[in-house]
Amino acid sequence: MSVVTSSPDTSTALLTDHYELTMVQAARQSGTADRRAVFELFPRRLPEGRRYGVVAGVGRALDAIECFRFDAASLAALEGVVDADLLDWLGSYRFSGDVWGYAEGEAYFPHSPLLVVEGTFAEAVLLETVLLSIYNHDSAIASAASRMTLAAGDRPCIEMGSRRTHEEAAVAAARAAYVAGFDATSNLAARARHGVPSTGTSAHSFTLLHDAEADAFRAQVQTLGVGTTLLVDTYDVAEAVALAVEVAGTGLGAVRLDSGDLGEIAREVRAQLDGLGATGTRIVVTSDLDEHAIAALAAAPVDAYGVGTQLVTGSGHPTCGFVYKLVAREGEDNELVSVAKKSLDKVSVGGRKYALRRRGPSGVAEAEVVGIGEAPADDGDPSTGLRTSDRPLLVPLVRAGEVVGRATLEEARARHRASVAELPRAVTMMSAGEPVIPTVFAG
Amino acid sequence: MSVVTSSPDTSTALLTDHYELTMVQAARQSGTADRRAVFELFPRRLPEGRRYGVVAGVGRALDAIECFRFDAASLAALEGVVDADLLDWLGSYRFSGDVWGYAEGEAYFPHSPLLVVEGTFAEAVLLETVLLSIYNHDSAIASAASRMTLAAGDRPCIEMGSRRTHEEAAVAAARAAYVAGFDATSNLAARARHGVPSTGTSAHSFTLLHDAEADAFRAQVQTLGVGTTLLVDTYDVAEAVALAVEVAGTGLGAVRLDSGDLGEIAREVRAQLDGLGATGTRIVVTSDLDEHAIAALAAAPVDAYGVGTQLVTGSGHPTCGFVYKLVAREGEDNELVSVAKKSLDKVSVGGRKYALRRRGPSGVAEAEVVGIGEAPADDGDPSTGLRTSDRPLLVPLVRAGEVVGRATLEEARARHRASVAELPRAVTMMSAGEPVIPTVFAG
Repeated sequence: MSVVTSSPDTSTALLTDHYELTMVQAARQSGTADRRAVFELFPRRLPEGRRYGVVAGVGRALDAIECFRFDAASLAALEGVVDADLLDWLGSYRFSGDVWGYAEGEAYFPHSPLLVVEGTFAEAVLLETVLLSIYNHDSAIASAASRMTLAAGDRPCIEMGSRRTHEEAAVAAARAAYVAGFDATSNLAARARHGVPSTGTSAHSFTLLHDAEADAFRAQVQTLGVGTTLLVDTYDVAEAVALAVEVAGTGLGAVRLDSGDLGEIAREVRAQLDGLGATGTRIVVTSDLDEHAIAALAAAPVDAYGVGTQLVTGSGHPTCGFVYKLVAREGEDNELVSVAKKSLDKVSVGGRKYALRRRGPSGVAEAEVVGIGEAPADDGDPSTGLRTSDRPLLVPLVRAGEVVGRATLEEARARHRASVAELPRAVTMMSAGEPVIPTVFAG
Repeated sequence: MSVVTSSPDTSTALLTDHYELTMVQAARQSGTADRRAVFELFPRRLPEGRRYGVVAGVGRALDAIECFRFDAASLAALEGVVDADLLDWLGSYRFSGDVWGYAEGEAYFPHSPLLVVEGTFAEAVLLETVLLSIYNHDSAIASAASRMTLAAGDRPCIEMGSRRTHEEAAVAAARAAYVAGFDATSNLAARARHGVPSTGTSAHSFTLLHDAEADAFRAQVQTLGVGTTLLVDTYDVAEAVALAVEVAGTGLGAVRLDSGDLGEIAREVRAQLDGLGATGTRIVVTSDLDEHAIAALAAAPVDAYGVGTQLVTGSGHPTCGFVYKLVAREGEDNELVSVAKKSLDKVSVGGRKYALRRRGPSGVAEAEVVGIGEAPADDGDPSTGLRTSDRPLLVPLVRAGEVVGRATLEEARARHRASVAELPRAVTMMSAGEPVIPTVFAG
């Protein structure tokens, strides 16, 4: 049995770009490797037309930092990449610095300082690639998922996209979707590793396997109970719905529609189910849904949405474009110096960042306030009742190398709900537009 | 230390949808689980505007089949998902059937039967999710990568997108890009696991870390040699190029440009380098390149392309939309029966498929011929010299559960080169269009 590509070892150290290591080697040459450094992970902008983003992957990133160790196999693989001196240094690598960041599930905007990583240059630069990979992927999924759950309102969304993305990305996508309000996933590894509830119906192959549709329905109901969801569009939908209720009775849990004009067919099926007395049988729809299709089905008698491709590909935006930039580092006099690349087309703002969400009357968010070098002041004044206290956004995640900011997925879900609820109403608009609140630099 | 999300164990069995298992449980109830079944993995269409696709992930899929075993931890995680009888069955699961498929690196077209999986329904349906995940992801990357390497011509392409995609998808993306003609990757895990050559330059943070650009350049050259690539756009490009040659000498390996109008700046830098005598110093460009940007730089004095975001996100098409459909299964009389869902909007063609690439005069591909139920006839007639023999596309990958079709990455690269070279010249067009050859059903 050869190496399994998707799950080789528990070290995350090689999920890293070649140049991170050679830069450390060169910085050791120039005596700058141990300079104190502050890196910031942030988005320069939201994806075109998006009104907000949602942070996910924080918990996975903390795991990745903890597991960022070069074991014997990793070091052996680096022969020829770096010199013996650096291999020796890597062998005892362990991140010993501090990390602050937005809590998982939090909304974000252009230039939100999602992570602030402080340590020596050498120890902090090594984390660049894996932190960006996790944040760029997971937040892209959560940002799309959040729009979908907003569009779905009270109706549950089920994540079913595993087959359309890399097999490990699928697990992370199920987790990120759950953070952003999805109710369940089809992915069993997400259930096993992260405790995301899993669920499933059946495929057309199951019906086609049987000599008659009735045989398939009977087998499923006998095995999984009448609460199961029967797939009714393999042959003729109306015949299948009649058959489903005949087999399972009026207590049938749900039927699934996976093709055609879903809104129109759902209306017909609802009428048919009600006519048969199966008034509690739910209608689940799937078939290349995205947030726009979900919104368009708002008036249709649909009870749940199964979302696949568009969820795991970020609904047009499969990556967030987060970058990880050095914003300050120790100078010759041992003081921190703000730094930034001078570029016209790629804006970076030097200096350590702080952030708060400015809230106005009734607690509605008004701005993303990013402080440079110092925390921006709260302009809330509860005594007058005219404004709500502003909300600081950076929480401690790692202190002296120890993870201190771990949250449960349920906490991340609650954070997502509260954070989105606090945003201006325009957040529910599915059309393209500007960020619902502006980013303001202060300090 | 908690569970690392990205690499938990060596079993691939939980990288699976919930319903695959419950369908098997129900099929055992109806006595159909052991019916002989043929599943087919295929694309209904190419992504909008694409003229061909490239198969990748074959080797990873074979690994995934071998490692698809339910160990004790997997079984424990399935308590509550399936019943004790099925847990018992899963405990001894091992795929014992046959698989044929397109070789890794091969071009594909709508309805190309990329994989044909034959076994019992139960054993074959369980592989659906993980096979689709691997093929849909890896082929999306290879299809985009192939267009980029075609656009780049003789100039090397370097994969640098790890930070923009899930950390494990990044490793698979580096591998798929290499199959499709990329020369190297930044990803160290792809080097360690798959032997993809890794390479790197340095980041702006490395320059910013130092008190002067000269200090950074000196450290890099002293550590990595004059053959290294210096990043010259942190401050002023012209000053940096002069400094780079001053520090490294005219033997400097390369300079990297990561912002601005790359074509215009490359011309200025080339003239400056030549004027300084550094005529052999190469120019590497990066910065959100895709196949169109690469093609647009064809006339510029650029020596290599570093490609990130657009590569790992499939350049607008992050997934291939491959499906895995039951196309034939054993009937009551023990004969195989062709089956297909009746649907107007999702075309599936029942029956076991065969495929060959029809080749005309000079060996240029003319059609993807898909035989239903039997292999299509070769219409080549080398004796007349007017046509070339057609080329069968399905190769044995697994026989009675044993992997027999493993190829090296170098073989996959050679297959990609040969397969693309055989296609009509329109394959090099970067504009949107129809597939360069039609798919024809026969038999």
